[in-house]
Amino acid sequence: MVAELTAHQLVEKHRPVLDQALEAIRTRAYWSPHPEHPKAYGEHGSLSAAEGKSAFDALLGTRLDLAQPGTDDWVGGETSPYGIELGVTYPHPDLDVLLPAMRAGTRAWRDAGAETRAVVCLEILARISARTHEFAHAVMHTSGQAFMMAFQAGGPHAQDRGLEAVAYAYAEQVRTPDTAEWTKPQGKRDPLALTKRFTPVGRGVALVIGCNTFPTWNGYPGLFASLATGNAVLVKPHPRAVLPLALTVQVAREVLADAGFDPNLVALAAERPGEGIAKTLALRPEIKIIDYTGSTAFGDWLETHARQAQVYTEKAGVNTVVVDSTDDYTGMLSNLAFSLSLYSGQMCTTPQNLLIPRDGITTDAGPKSYEEVVADLSASVAGLLGDDARAGGLLGALVNPDVRARLEAAPGLGEVALASREISNPEFPDAVVRTPVIVKLDGAKPDAEAVYLEECFGPVSFAVAVDSAADALELLRRTVRDKGVMTVGAYTTSDEFAEAVEEVCLEECAQLSLNLTGGVYVNQTAAFSDFHGSGGNPAANAALCDGAFVANRFRVVEVRREG
Amino acid sequence: MVAELTAHQLVEKHRPVLDQALEAIRTRAYWSPHPEHPKAYGEHGSLSAAEGKSAFDALLGTRLDLAQPGTDDWVGGETSPYGIELGVTYPHPDLDVLLPAMRAGTRAWRDAGAETRAVVCLEILARISARTHEFAHAVMHTSGQAFMMAFQAGGPHAQDRGLEAVAYAYAEQVRTPDTAEWTKPQGKRDPLALTKRFTPVGRGVALVIGCNTFPTWNGYPGLFASLATGNAVLVKPHPRAVLPLALTVQVAREVLADAGFDPNLVALAAERPGEGIAKTLALRPEIKIIDYTGSTAFGDWLETHARQAQVYTEKAGVNTVVVDSTDDYTGMLSNLAFSLSLYSGQMCTTPQNLLIPRDGITTDAGPKSYEEVVADLSASVAGLLGDDARAGGLLGALVNPDVRARLEAAPGLGEVALASREISNPEFPDAVVRTPVIVKLDGAKPDAEAVYLEECFGPVSFAVAVDSAADALELLRRTVRDKGVMTVGAYTTSDEFAEAVEEVCLEECAQLSLNLTGGVYVNQTAAFSDFHGSGGNPAANAALCDGAFVANRFRVVEVRREG
Repeated sequence: MVAELTAHQLVEKHRPVLDQALEAIRTRAYWSPHPEHPKAYGEHGSLSAAEGKSAFDALLGTRLDLAQPGTDDWVGGETSPYGIELGVTYPHPDLDVLLPAMRAGTRAWRDAGAETRAVVCLEILARISARTHEFAHAVMHTSGQAFMMAFQAGGPHAQDRGLEAVAYAYAEQVRTPDTAEWTKPQGKRDPLALTKRFTPVGRGVALVIGCNTFPTWNGYPGLFASLATGNAVLVKPHPRAVLPLALTVQVAREVLADAGFDPNLVALAAERPGEGIAKTLALRPEIKIIDYTGSTAFGDWLETHARQAQVYTEKAGVNTVVVDSTDDYTGMLSNLAFSLSLYSGQMCTTPQNLLIPRDGITTDAGPKSYEEVVADLSASVAGLLGDDARAGGLLGALVNPDVRARLEAAPGLGEVALASREISNPEFPDAVVRTPVIVKLDGAKPDAEAVYLEECFGPVSFAVAVDSAADALELLRRTVRDKGVMTVGAYTTSDEFAEAVEEVCLEECAQLSLNLTGGVYVNQTAAFSDFHGSGGNPAANAALCDGAFVANRFRVVEVRREG
Repeated sequence: MVAELTAHQLVEKHRPVLDQALEAIRTRAYWSPHPEHPKAYGEHGSLSAAEGKSAFDALLGTRLDLAQPGTDDWVGGETSPYGIELGVTYPHPDLDVLLPAMRAGTRAWRDAGAETRAVVCLEILARISARTHEFAHAVMHTSGQAFMMAFQAGGPHAQDRGLEAVAYAYAEQVRTPDTAEWTKPQGKRDPLALTKRFTPVGRGVALVIGCNTFPTWNGYPGLFASLATGNAVLVKPHPRAVLPLALTVQVAREVLADAGFDPNLVALAAERPGEGIAKTLALRPEIKIIDYTGSTAFGDWLETHARQAQVYTEKAGVNTVVVDSTDDYTGMLSNLAFSLSLYSGQMCTTPQNLLIPRDGITTDAGPKSYEEVVADLSASVAGLLGDDARAGGLLGALVNPDVRARLEAAPGLGEVALASREISNPEFPDAVVRTPVIVKLDGAKPDAEAVYLEECFGPVSFAVAVDSAADALELLRRTVRDKGVMTVGAYTTSDEFAEAVEEVCLEECAQLSLNLTGGVYVNQTAAFSDFHGSGGNPAANAALCDGAFVANRFRVVEVRREG
């Protein structure tokens, strides 16, 4: 192949961004090369809002032909949570043809070296970034996120996480030099001398199993970490959220070809309804790495059975907020209200259990009983979502019928402090938009415990009355240890209590947000700075991103010779 | 506890060595702070040869009381391969007491931070280094290594590998800063600002399962990697090789106490004959990390069953040397002869299969037939080991009856090219010292393949006649993929063939030594420069040492707050 883009050109174009990313993961200060504001797009080759919308509309009802080898069928069937039938069909793979074809290009990809792989990945991300408006619609109409969230979380934030993974992967691979001269003195005799060459080699084909709610944000770290470390990557999207990852694969294949590499290094595995191709793929001997976001049950299955692969999972948890005291009661309530509402609680980081002492808490607005805190929080949520248009922009739509079923079952679990209400969306009248429900539970009662210690994914939160703040800490510890959490929040004015909750999080390995009352929310993490998950409790066996997320995706082969 | 050694003192003393180690793993040039020559010891507080011997002799027949909590018995029973009964007894643990006690000190150990942990580890290594002569006897009389090898491999080289692990562990932990100020612009509004604290936290108690042949060299990387990353470490030595690791635990406990930490952060788990305590330990919920060196069967068992732990294994392989051609026939033969003889072939890196084209090879001494190569290599081994005193110094003693049984069964496997002979050791008349056997096998015959494709640990090598050099490559590929290798060697004068063998090693993930004819041997790796194992083929799931070896022994917990 003749490369339209040489490695030299790509290095010249992207090396500065790579260097900034490397610096950002060292300092963990704020940084991003991907603009968050929709109006920042439309120039320098990027699609404007209108162009993005048109591009998305033009995709509907089409066959997305990725020109992959071993395509034996065309499959699709996505329906937007906003009610649109996408009607896009995708290649269905004959694995016995596709998987070997994906390996064909790995030698050249390996020989290209870590820097070239990194800048090719950055070119993929840059072309995705230029199509952010188009991707935003694709994410919106598969995940049910409201447009602004789909734009930001599915666009720049996802691209940030992908870039972060590339930076970690690059840094890890260049820790060992390409070559070394080794000379060991031997007293009066001649020294022993060896020339050594070190080559990072990928493990084979990596599998990314995408999720319904954040196809790009959760998919990009594994995809780019594996590709940047020399692996081919097969992307198996969630059947309800194929389009964003199919477009990603399309861009990756274009860039690989333009840079003179085999486009089959990245491929899509779409599936027929009910086919369950992930299980088949996960046990294929060619698959050496698996990245998975989704249910605990299937994550545990992968960890147990896909023994030929390195398995990175982000499963589910029972996210918890401990409320002890606050010097900004209003700020606390509005911060929590936003966290519970954003994307209808359909984030793996949304708080589920709010642990509140039954004797109440101290605040800057005076002491507040458990009942008052729950009522005030409910009012804060109701107020935040009082206007349907604003509410729709925050809530998005329910991603699937399972979430809706859980929401509808919630009133049967305990006393309802805040009932869910329907929000109408004039633009998409078929969208199922609901405000969150808050249910009161007595933490000391075993039947309540059976409820709040299971994940209830969606817009359902439990206001759990606990005997004391100390009791809350014990429950937090048990929750993290036994069920896992992606996030922990805590509100306290006591240094001593803050230290105690920190100690629980350090010992049980949970990421903690303390006293958030402003515009940062416990359910949001920023690439290059915040770790998403800890990798040390049952909710996830990896964190986005750190050295452990990339270090075992490749091995270093040494060739040494005399002289 | 009042620390006799402050962190500041330890940093002052050891930081320069840590920095040199960090530089060495980056450049992979030759470096070691641990002298290889026995005469380098005896000053600056280190034991001289005579003092080390006396110290070892004084241990015989004693109870090594480590003052561990939960000791319910005293166990021992080591017999030196050189015939001495060591008569040392060690604490046997009541795990329900010892394991909780080991966790008690982890909070202070965590809070000490990565640098303090690193310099405490370096103080442990420095005190071990000062007792190298004593350790040499302990290693010799448990592994059967000859004194000089026990001194070097069990002393400075093992200490190097431990220090290397500390350097990797330190580097990995400080990739994330302790704190960060994160400020995200919000246009005309106030920026969002968070203060973040990042803490590396160990996973719990790490288990090191030692081996018979290299108790310190194979034990130190895991021990120090886990300790330096904030874990407590329980050392379960091989029942035949307890003393070197018991002394190591003793030193570690002394240093920890002197530095003001809980000595129970490092403990020994000795066992009764046949107790099989490793299986029990490996499944304890407190055990979160396991490092293991030993048989494939138990390594596979650990990988399959110890699901609560990160498992690092170095198992067995079928190490292979491909002989295609050479421009230094004599050098090749003497290099190979040394490799086959060193420690009676009882290294996990010793070549087992020598693949030689049945039509012979080209050399600087003219063409040599398969028969000639095998005969000349046999003569070279016989010459190297012709003098009993010299032979004993190279071979050491057979480590256990299993090795002896395999050696004695070898003549039944094929035509013997070189028979084993007994070497007498006047100093230790009961030592079982044998020269290696070389057996000729036809690579094309299925019954021969069943022999040479299984590991035959000990002084048994197979001269395998293959149809061609290309055939050798295919057999090499199959061996690495199906059986695993720790080492591959190759001899060739053809650039094309060298490239082909390199490609097999890159694709199958094996460490390759090319055309070694001088004083470096395929079975030796140098810390800070060579990787021991690749972690990418069935012989081992980890390499000593790299980022992947340390990165998942801890997680980073983030605490973020506003302002």
